[in-house]
Amino acid sequence: MKKWMRVLMVIICGLSLAVFISCTAVENDTATETFTAAETTVSSYAEDRALIEDLMARYMFALDWRDLDTYALTFTEDGILDIVGLKWQGREEIKTAIQGPATDADSEGNSNDGLYPATGRHNITNIVIKIDGDRAYGRAYWFHVGNDNPERSAVLNSYGHYEDEMVKVDGEWLFSKRIIYNEQMAEWIGSAENPSW
Amino acid sequence: MKKWMRVLMVIICGLSLAVFISCTAVENDTATETFTAAETTVSSYAEDRALIEDLMARYMFALDWRDLDTYALTFTEDGILDIVGLKWQGREEIKTAIQGPATDADSEGNSNDGLYPATGRHNITNIVIKIDGDRAYGRAYWFHVGNDNPERSAVLNSYGHYEDEMVKVDGEWLFSKRIIYNEQMAEWIGSAENPSW
Amino acid sequence: MKKWMRVLMVIICGLSLAVFISCTAVENDTATETFTAAETTVSSYAEDRALIEDLMARYMFALDWRDLDTYALTFTEDGILDIVGLKWQGREEIKTAIQGPATDADSEGNSNDGLYPATGRHNITNIVIKIDGDRAYGRAYWFHVGNDNPERSAVLNSYGHYEDEMVKVDGEWLFSKRIIYNEQMAEWIGSAENPSW
Repeated sequence: MKKWMRVLMVIICGLSLAVFISCTAVENDTATETFTAAETTVSSYAEDRALIEDLMARYMFALDWRDLDTYALTFTEDGILDIVGLKWQGREEIKTAIQGPATDADSEGNSNDGLYPATGRHNITNIVIKIDGDRAYGRAYWFHVGNDNPERSAVLNSYGHYEDEMVKVDGEWLFSKRIIYNEQMAEWIGSAENPSW
Repeated sequence: MKKWMRVLMVIICGLSLAVFISCTAVENDTATETFTAAETTVSSYAEDRALIEDLMARYMFALDWRDLDTYALTFTEDGILDIVGLKWQGREEIKTAIQGPATDADSEGNSNDGLYPATGRHNITNIVIKIDGDRAYGRAYWFHVGNDNPERSAVLNSYGHYEDEMVKVDGEWLFSKRIIYNEQMAEWIGSAENPSW
Repeated sequence: MKKWMRVLMVIICGLSLAVFISCTAVENDTATETFTAAETTVSSYAEDRALIEDLMARYMFALDWRDLDTYALTFTEDGILDIVGLKWQGREEIKTAIQGPATDADSEGNSNDGLYPATGRHNITNIVIKIDGDRAYGRAYWFHVGNDNPERSAVLNSYGHYEDEMVKVDGEWLFSKRIIYNEQMAEWIGSAENPSW
């Protein structure tokens, strides 16, 4: 074989190799991107909504079981808890604000005499969520049931709604602001305008 | 270099270019498709369910705050609202049908004397959803709480369930038919058979 | 054209064909993988959560409408139903355990006299779900409303919470264990520690 033929062969092999690497690279890229899509579906409404619904449910468990650390951690570091008129900012302030008694029974220290402890349960329904990148806006209903009576019978105590702002921090959704409206107190009721959209 | 060698070089370069373009095209295709998957996950159960849950929650806010336009827009243009016995079709008819007073207090015009306005809140739970392309079938529970009494205390008023049909129109899920069953009225109760699956 | 030139042409064509097939293969792979991602988003939190929420809602319809077969099928074949103190394992055992009367009215056989049948409705809220591959852990609140009284008026009867374990069997999420806590009975109440996370 002549010298120029060997040179030509080298060129062909080189080109083919380059194309092969290029194709392989595409294949790897594809695998990676598709995997990422399947794993996190980063910009999916469903994914963000699912995580926020979970946050809102964990908030309730922490609140009703007086797990104040977990409760405070559902807020961002500078998050705001606002019960219309009273407002707290930051996890420490929020924790202090809600660390009172869980039920009237506990505060009076006597209505539990001879009975198992009374409990109170906040429930969330009708969750509306709008996502805008790493920010989210929520509206939802809440109502409270409890059994702080001698029969430990279930009683509906109060209801209202939430107006929320959430932020995604390091992949985790947290409340940056939660406003709680309550229809059982004149000074805590919400606006007459639909707060949703 | 001889003439045929130059011709050969041109052929090799041409082929390589063709392959390169082909590979690049694949890469672009891939990027596009993966992006679409991540953005919308078109045929995902979670995505459709998330949008429908949001619709069902927005419906409640619009209903309870008497935001009749927003309420009517949760239905398709020829959507049906059926409260078992009474049935309305189309947004205008639906809007007219529900534009009565929000609470007994409002209708009687006196029980609000000296008090802040009473409110009523419909809550949805137990949402079952089946998706079939651009159509969906839903079952869910509802209950109503209100405070139309002199103490503005929270009272459970009624409960029942929904049997829904939804359609995806231009990417937005809407009610094409909502039937409301109510367990507080003999003529409005549902079937004794499980309406779900 | 000389012999070696023909050989070279064959080599170039062969290489190009190989590259073309390789690229096409990548394209097919890509299409398949992306399709899969869009169709099922296998490892998506939202997808798993959506299916589990649907399971939890269908469970309630089956329970309240006394659809015992459908109810039992929400459990795995060796699934456990535990109401704190009483425990049943397997679909047949579970079905037998819950096949009693739906309401006191039914059991007494008289309080329905002259009235339409009374109903009871279990509602689920505050659903917390953690996914670990084909296993999931859930916490949620429940409360029960009914109208077993002469006025068929809506009454809140009881509330409590669930502690659940779910397994994905052939793509379908089922309860492998559901523990039901009830705050209306001293022996059925839950722990004083937050059962969630």
